[in-house]
Amino acid sequence: MSPAKVHISACLIRYSLKLKNCENMTANLSAFYSRLMDKVKEIFLFDSAGAIIHWDMETMMPPKAIKLRSQQLALLSRIEHKMSTSPEIGKLLEDIMKHPEYADLDPVQKRNIYLVKKHYDEQTKLPEELVAEIAKQRAITTDVWKKAKAAKNFAMFKPELEKLVELQKKAAEILMEVKQTETPYDALIDIFEPKMTARTITKVFNELQQGLVSLLKKCEASPKQPDISILKRKVPIELQRKIAKALAETVGYDVTSKEARGRIDETEHPFTTGFYDDVRITTHYYEDNFTSSIFSVLHEAGHALYEQNLKPEWMFQPVGTACSSGFHESQSRFIENIVGRSWEFWKYFLPKLKQLTGTVFSDIDLDKYVQAINRVKPSKIRVEADEVTYCLHIIIRFNLERDLFADKITVKELPHIWNQQYKEFLDIIIENDSEGVMQDTHWASGLFGYFPSYALGNIYSGQILEALQKDMPNWKKQIENGNFKQIKEWLVKNVHSYGNLYDPPELLVKITGKKLHVNPYLSYLTEKYSKIYQF
Amino acid sequence: MSPAKVHISACLIRYSLKLKNCENMTANLSAFYSRLMDKVKEIFLFDSAGAIIHWDMETMMPPKAIKLRSQQLALLSRIEHKMSTSPEIGKLLEDIMKHPEYADLDPVQKRNIYLVKKHYDEQTKLPEELVAEIAKQRAITTDVWKKAKAAKNFAMFKPELEKLVELQKKAAEILMEVKQTETPYDALIDIFEPKMTARTITKVFNELQQGLVSLLKKCEASPKQPDISILKRKVPIELQRKIAKALAETVGYDVTSKEARGRIDETEHPFTTGFYDDVRITTHYYEDNFTSSIFSVLHEAGHALYEQNLKPEWMFQPVGTACSSGFHESQSRFIENIVGRSWEFWKYFLPKLKQLTGTVFSDIDLDKYVQAINRVKPSKIRVEADEVTYCLHIIIRFNLERDLFADKITVKELPHIWNQQYKEFLDIIIENDSEGVMQDTHWASGLFGYFPSYALGNIYSGQILEALQKDMPNWKKQIENGNFKQIKEWLVKNVHSYGNLYDPPELLVKITGKKLHVNPYLSYLTEKYSKIYQF
Repeated sequence: MSPAKVHISACLIRYSLKLKNCENMTANLSAFYSRLMDKVKEIFLFDSAGAIIHWDMETMMPPKAIKLRSQQLALLSRIEHKMSTSPEIGKLLEDIMKHPEYADLDPVQKRNIYLVKKHYDEQTKLPEELVAEIAKQRAITTDVWKKAKAAKNFAMFKPELEKLVELQKKAAEILMEVKQTETPYDALIDIFEPKMTARTITKVFNELQQGLVSLLKKCEASPKQPDISILKRKVPIELQRKIAKALAETVGYDVTSKEARGRIDETEHPFTTGFYDDVRITTHYYEDNFTSSIFSVLHEAGHALYEQNLKPEWMFQPVGTACSSGFHESQSRFIENIVGRSWEFWKYFLPKLKQLTGTVFSDIDLDKYVQAINRVKPSKIRVEADEVTYCLHIIIRFNLERDLFADKITVKELPHIWNQQYKEFLDIIIENDSEGVMQDTHWASGLFGYFPSYALGNIYSGQILEALQKDMPNWKKQIENGNFKQIKEWLVKNVHSYGNLYDPPELLVKITGKKLHVNPYLSYLTEKYSKIYQF
Repeated sequence: MSPAKVHISACLIRYSLKLKNCENMTANLSAFYSRLMDKVKEIFLFDSAGAIIHWDMETMMPPKAIKLRSQQLALLSRIEHKMSTSPEIGKLLEDIMKHPEYADLDPVQKRNIYLVKKHYDEQTKLPEELVAEIAKQRAITTDVWKKAKAAKNFAMFKPELEKLVELQKKAAEILMEVKQTETPYDALIDIFEPKMTARTITKVFNELQQGLVSLLKKCEASPKQPDISILKRKVPIELQRKIAKALAETVGYDVTSKEARGRIDETEHPFTTGFYDDVRITTHYYEDNFTSSIFSVLHEAGHALYEQNLKPEWMFQPVGTACSSGFHESQSRFIENIVGRSWEFWKYFLPKLKQLTGTVFSDIDLDKYVQAINRVKPSKIRVEADEVTYCLHIIIRFNLERDLFADKITVKELPHIWNQQYKEFLDIIIENDSEGVMQDTHWASGLFGYFPSYALGNIYSGQILEALQKDMPNWKKQIENGNFKQIKEWLVKNVHSYGNLYDPPELLVKITGKKLHVNPYLSYLTEKYSKIYQF
């Protein structure tokens, strides 16, 4: 045997040994991974069944069943918690992440493991007692909030909100350690907008605020003010239901065919629920405010399209979920505002609206209609705000949350600062705290760190629009022709199908080539409103 | 100290010792019982949440969600099985039943334990492999049944049905041991109609058969035959929906108020689901067959009233469930037929029907309408049968099941004997097996032992009517006046509120003072049909 052959032989032996080990290890790793994904699939299935029960409660349930339903939901939530904090998941995560071949997993597998671990840590690192205390205090605070709001009495609400904030601070401090964020508040933001920080948000929100306030002043100064009387015309609910379906179908959210994967129902507060082949939206019809349901249907359809068009092969995997609350909002606001309040959309849809409503709108002019649905007017209530003022409402809430969790302000000071900022940003006088600091349910139900997502969604939508415009310069023409197919496909390809493969900052760069910045959103608004208000 | 005092003293010591032991034991027993009832409550809650998911699938779910839904349901069923076969339940049952103070439990507690044990045994005594094999074979047989029925080809269906029957026989033999029944088939009947036996059923069904055949001959021989052309009049679906609600409300099944505990939706096959404060029914509207939904709504409302009016304090306990399938059917048939097809009911409701349907029925005469909805005519299809022939369909099915499980006949012989008995009982020629032995889904889906309940329900309803007549001689007048309140209260007090405290034979005696016998049901039919057919 020549030395060369000996060498080759030895190599082959080493190689085959390595291969054998490797196969064993890979087999083990692959078994661990499969097992983990099976457990995760069960949680997805269980959660989605629970979502139907929730949806039923809001839409279909006979009124007297509420007590039974709350017991059913409490049980489902206990079982879900047990499933998603099961020590087996913790053990599998450990086995996988410490495995010598871990590095060889593909990026999707690694992302799945990362997301499972993140969720598992969020669920298990907080002491059970604290979780229980927060749940209890949330229920109390929500209950008191309802009463205090009805009584226009912040003093009633204050002590319970203080307790809740204290508990949430404790939780935020623990989560800060787990997630290695700079501040406790960042750890809360990270739940809804991963890797986003108050520092970044402060910077872009300041720019946004300046741009919006300047735009608002121009709109207000314009002699050309839209006539909104047309929006008060009465449209029978039965017709509004038909309009809602037609709108949904127009933007590609199928709710009527034999292939439908969605449906529209009615609730006090509109929402979207479900994923993939079962995504349902709700709306609310007001006879004397027909655009309320028009824009809520378009908004929710935007959320629904995102959930329906996640990658089919990622179903039941963490990567097969939406990226963040902000990205979700970017999709709903894109359909509601960028598409749904555009001149081009109504060039196509107004004739349909006229057709569906008989003589109600037969005298209506397209330009005047588009001006009316885009009227800018500062108001006290966030959910009624126009595109120009909406984010200002959010920025005020963010400023307060951030300073509250940084111990720079106290719960007691919230109403005063709230009112001050409404005066400063919107020139609005808040008469009482029910139309002020107590208007939203978020804080009462312990949802801190969520508000920024709303404005981030709008900023994302501007950057996404810029990218779309580059790829599809004729996008407005497409809308004008009622051809939404290509735009939907672009959104599916460039946003929806990424699922949760990247955290928001990274996904934004993937989609738009740029980091978070407000210029595209401000440009979009400026271009649109300078036409409407002729400045 | 006098001897008497010493004696008393000793007694007191013994007594207090006994009391102490007794308290300990009672405390333990009561803790075991509470723990068992907590577990049972969880199963009830979980089951009822699953029922909503099932209901949603049949009524609301977007069509493309079916694959997702089947996975959700499979998971829920696995979890439910795990909950209801948990060794902890077995251990608690043992601890309770072997407890020295067991005899001191009250009758409701003992009945609960008996029912939990019965269900637990039914779930756990069958080998898991057999259960899995049966589940698999049921799915296969159902699938093949659909195809064979479409192809009118029993030969296609036969081999799979044979396999299923063999597996069910194995299961029935094991259950026979567990339940200590006389035959394997009795063990299957017992699942749906506890303590009922094929021997008893054979005896009463023979009497019923003779009575019905004789009645049928009289109706057929009568020169007075109802004109049913009126039943073909077209009624728009929207109006039928209004009729359905009005009917439900009339019999006390509230589906519209703010206190409603029910609702009506649409499915191909009508059904009732839920319990207590959330009991939903479905129906099917045909434009050219408006009575189809009228009687299915009344039928399902009868089921719904039973479930809604179980004793509130027994909610989540086995005693707080309906007694049996047969008793359930007694309630649905009572409302559908005894009330809903009576002259008195339509004396009250026909004006309402006319009012709701504009001019469709303005020329209709009450007597002729009542004759039309009570027309007797032998038909091939069970679900379309009138009151006189309905039970004959059931008796044929029972005869075949009983002989099949006693190895007196084979699957191969089913079509021939079926056709023979249809000729003998109903003078009907079955042209092909799709309108014959393959018409129902029951056997294909492994539901053996269920059919007798349908006819037993009718027999019970006759005995219940006899008891009601004694207590409330003016019951017909009440219906005529549209006053259903007292009749409903009587049913609640005498039937519904007993829940599952007694097995069917015992409950029947409680309600009616008599054992199972067919005379009241035959008397009711004879009285009614002798008027309609004037014999």
